[in-house]
Amino acid sequence: MSQDERSAGDLRNTGMSLKHDRTWDYELDRIVEAVEERDAEKVGLQFPEGLKRRAPHVADDLRALLPDDTRVMISGKPCYGACDLDTYMMRRTDVFAHFGHSPMKESEKIIYVPLFSNVDVLPIMEESLEELEKGDVGLVTTAQHMNKFDEMREYLEERGFDVHTRRGDERLTHEGQVLGCNYASADIDADQILYVGGGKFHPLGLAMEHPDKDVVIADPVNNVVTLADTEKFMKQRYAAVHKAMDAEEWGVIFCTKIGQGRWETANEIVENNENAYLLTMDEVTPDRLTNFGLDAYVNTGCPRITTDDGPQFKQPMLTPGEYEIAVGNKDLDELSFDTFHGTW
Amino acid sequence: MSQDERSAGDLRNTGMSLKHDRTWDYELDRIVEAVEERDAEKVGLQFPEGLKRRAPHVADDLRALLPDDTRVMISGKPCYGACDLDTYMMRRTDVFAHFGHSPMKESEKIIYVPLFSNVDVLPIMEESLEELEKGDVGLVTTAQHMNKFDEMREYLEERGFDVHTRRGDERLTHEGQVLGCNYASADIDADQILYVGGGKFHPLGLAMEHPDKDVVIADPVNNVVTLADTEKFMKQRYAAVHKAMDAEEWGVIFCTKIGQGRWETANEIVENNENAYLLTMDEVTPDRLTNFGLDAYVNTGCPRITTDDGPQFKQPMLTPGEYEIAVGNKDLDELSFDTFHGTW
Repeated sequence: MSQDERSAGDLRNTGMSLKHDRTWDYELDRIVEAVEERDAEKVGLQFPEGLKRRAPHVADDLRALLPDDTRVMISGKPCYGACDLDTYMMRRTDVFAHFGHSPMKESEKIIYVPLFSNVDVLPIMEESLEELEKGDVGLVTTAQHMNKFDEMREYLEERGFDVHTRRGDERLTHEGQVLGCNYASADIDADQILYVGGGKFHPLGLAMEHPDKDVVIADPVNNVVTLADTEKFMKQRYAAVHKAMDAEEWGVIFCTKIGQGRWETANEIVENNENAYLLTMDEVTPDRLTNFGLDAYVNTGCPRITTDDGPQFKQPMLTPGEYEIAVGNKDLDELSFDTFHGTW
Repeated sequence: MSQDERSAGDLRNTGMSLKHDRTWDYELDRIVEAVEERDAEKVGLQFPEGLKRRAPHVADDLRALLPDDTRVMISGKPCYGACDLDTYMMRRTDVFAHFGHSPMKESEKIIYVPLFSNVDVLPIMEESLEELEKGDVGLVTTAQHMNKFDEMREYLEERGFDVHTRRGDERLTHEGQVLGCNYASADIDADQILYVGGGKFHPLGLAMEHPDKDVVIADPVNNVVTLADTEKFMKQRYAAVHKAMDAEEWGVIFCTKIGQGRWETANEIVENNENAYLLTMDEVTPDRLTNFGLDAYVNTGCPRITTDDGPQFKQPMLTPGEYEIAVGNKDLDELSFDTFHGTW
């Protein structure tokens, strides 16, 4: 089957929009080499949600390069980020390739294939200059565009900008990289930040984490320049907090995914509220919570489930910081974006 | 909070309808004892989907009996049967209690609490006599009513029936017990079988597995006697098989849940069909399959997902046996119900 026979997946949540038809380098040679080295019998492949449609095609290409008796399998678990690493598959295959995200867990067994974008970033950066004020500017991007980061920086410097970048903390692999849950690379001394990358998922998180900074989005995939506007999100957050103020019984979600477990945070809440119940799960979905019938939920797992998917849940779902406001431990003006910092 | 404050959950899929308001014996003393013996710090509780609403109440009762520093947590993973055992929670708690199902995996660490029903089965059995012919009759029930199995048998014998029962195979814990995926206890020498228990989930599987036998349902929970009618299901199965006959590309689902992995079956399909792709996952849901964009799916995991939830999936999903028919390896008249037999 040719790649053209498959329609593009929905990449909204991965930051990898497919309005440009792009080809990715799956680096199959690295996988083949690992199979030979390890005399592997089982090979596991995991793709982000938006690239799952391409998975059978990649498996075809890979199988053509491998011995007939090598078993290639594709993870069917939801995958929106590095912390969705399929640890079951990792444990049960000899070679395990995770596509499209930076390493969450370093392991000799895992081959991380970054899937760098081949989209030219300069034309849309040129357009974005109109939105930037001369002087200091922060520069960030996602894993997909890291291969062009030096090019981006040089482009701005050549035009007289004082470009501020940093690697952020240990959760981040590259200088200037942002994750949906970590914007430490934007903790720089500039009032404006240029985000170069596809989609609004990352820059919206960035703008929520840094409400004092202007975030300009140069999206080379959808070919648009916009300004990050968090108003809708912030209204939803305040509404959720207000609604949760009436809650008597709370479900406190401890997420079992690698990199999302905030055990201390979850326990502190449960210890201090006798009407709070500790719930453990991997995927946090409306269906799973509904059956418990509690009044409100605190999600100590992925903050983006809370902020981006929150309205889909029947009961208010808050971040740990928002919970403190709802139960009266903090003032409403202390509301801030929830992030994961530091090591996993 | 009192139990009355919670509305009853939807127990359709658990075989535990709540039209009768029942109280369950959660056997908290066994859990407390285990906590003391093991000096446990973490206690995990897992409930079937339909009893999740009662989980916070049970946690309250349990916490009142335990030292203050014991952490009680509730599994938020979907749970419709014994094979949904939360192995993550099992590994990370000192005492792990699984409610409402027979043991799937024997372990000293797991406390299985059967939650026997307190419903009187005799009145509805009396009513069911009108549907039974004198002579040989098979008798089966679910885990919830096993505590009354001897009473059921005696009732029938006293009325002149020749009651046939068997334990089935190793997958079944008790004589006369059926699971949604295993009806070996009905492999008896009688043309009619009396199923005593709540809901239609189990007797429908029973009737599909044994199309040559009449299945009478005596439901003491909903207080009705009916005959199992598989016509709707069978039409859906034939329709799915016919639709799948046009499929070019197949997803072959290997379920990673304990007790649902049929590795040989999945591999045999993939080895013999170059347009079949091996997909691994725990929960098998429409969302997870849609993103792959394949033409049809074979589910080697839970057969009841295929037969009962099948129509919710956008593409046809078949059992392994149905797949053989769809690709022309078997005749349509060989269509039979998919079951799990033997050990896990």
